[in-house]
Amino acid sequence: MNENDGTVYLVGSGPGDPELLTVRARELLEDADVVLHDKLPGPEIIGAIPPEKREDVGKRAGGERTDQEYTNDRLVELAREGNRVVRLKGGDPFVFGRGGEEMEHLAAHGIEFEVVPGLPSPVAGPGVAGIPLTHREWVSSVSFVTGHEDPDKPESTVDWAALAATGGTIVVLMGVGKLPEYTAALREAGMAPDTPVALIERATWPDQRVAVGTLADIVSVRDEAEIEPPAVTVIGEVVATRERVLEQLAGGEP
Amino acid sequence: MNENDGTVYLVGSGPGDPELLTVRARELLEDADVVLHDKLPGPEIIGAIPPEKREDVGKRAGGERTDQEYTNDRLVELAREGNRVVRLKGGDPFVFGRGGEEMEHLAAHGIEFEVVPGLPSPVAGPGVAGIPLTHREWVSSVSFVTGHEDPDKPESTVDWAALAATGGTIVVLMGVGKLPEYTAALREAGMAPDTPVALIERATWPDQRVAVGTLADIVSVRDEAEIEPPAVTVIGEVVATRERVLEQLAGGEP
Repeated sequence: MNENDGTVYLVGSGPGDPELLTVRARELLEDADVVLHDKLPGPEIIGAIPPEKREDVGKRAGGERTDQEYTNDRLVELAREGNRVVRLKGGDPFVFGRGGEEMEHLAAHGIEFEVVPGLPSPVAGPGVAGIPLTHREWVSSVSFVTGHEDPDKPESTVDWAALAATGGTIVVLMGVGKLPEYTAALREAGMAPDTPVALIERATWPDQRVAVGTLADIVSVRDEAEIEPPAVTVIGEVVATRERVLEQLAGGEP
Repeated sequence: MNENDGTVYLVGSGPGDPELLTVRARELLEDADVVLHDKLPGPEIIGAIPPEKREDVGKRAGGERTDQEYTNDRLVELAREGNRVVRLKGGDPFVFGRGGEEMEHLAAHGIEFEVVPGLPSPVAGPGVAGIPLTHREWVSSVSFVTGHEDPDKPESTVDWAALAATGGTIVVLMGVGKLPEYTAALREAGMAPDTPVALIERATWPDQRVAVGTLADIVSVRDEAEIEPPAVTVIGEVVATRERVLEQLAGGEP
């Protein structure tokens, strides 16, 4: 490491509500010389960063996505110039965030870095929607899975039958487009068609929306509600908690 | 709801580092009339709450654990007295935190509440230890599972064979004591004995420790390192990232 080099902070932004940033993330955003980000941290968090400090690596000028190699190299370049660099990722950098790849690139180039975890949307979304992910008596595990795998992979590595067999709650990230495919796969694997399912669009953003159905009808629920990405899908008996609580609140005191 | 009633905030503390509290959690702790907590938020976060505002519901006077029913009733009672009540949970209230049960109890009694998600230790621990939970090319899911189920349950509902079959990363919470049992179950399910495993004790606390081994030898690694609860266990190829990065950092620039 060169002592004139700056440091790169791989920072999770959480789900989008600025109040759900960690104290550490907020401090680092205030002190950063430059912040590399994409669209996932959401408009409120990105909007609070002075424009002259921001670099959007989610899209390039021509509308194409910036490739990971460019981002990796840019992080090294900015650090070598002595900057205090924040690489801001939606949710947590290590939960479907490609933060691991960036960390390895920095380490390989001798750049000092720190990982600052953030609240993943599959935790925060169900949280604010009133859906506990586990239950002491009847749900002992929760799995997070991506609905949108690397399109260059020769075949899917997601084993939906195994996920169904865990008996735990399943939360699918980036799972709006492939909803018909994986709900069908889960039904084929023996999951009950009346298993409750929730779609949480833009979790914790001011325009958050929640739509609830079952494994059998959630695709038409999605279409009628016009749910669009980004959203998380929650699958399991725990989803029914939300409706129970809403009914109780509507009914007043017992 | 009675308009003189207070509000209960079910707040996740995150893993224990006060800097990893959310901005919202820190504000609520500052403004609370009373904070009900157990030991899991850790000494630094609990120590920063004025003693006269704290109620420890983790242990009762006699050393026994407070039962959930007592906590539920106490939340209602404090709210009815008009208090601004924070129920502070280690990690996230809805990830093995029994927050769902407390929310349902509050709703059934017509008490206003808000859920404030927090960083779960199975996310933050691997994060600060340099272990990404997923990898775009070779890990498309991550499962969180409890190693310590409700002892009153007639039989375990954790299907270790199904978890192994997902091919994803597995993170076990409260899994120090039962490590021999579930590592054996995963091996019996066909998981390779050389699968890397990390134990992260007191993740993000000042005295955090990490011990690394394989599915075959992690029990003796635990014993030699004297790893004690609270700790999370991370099982999967992603664990090898940590060693690679540490070697690269030790080796200097390429």
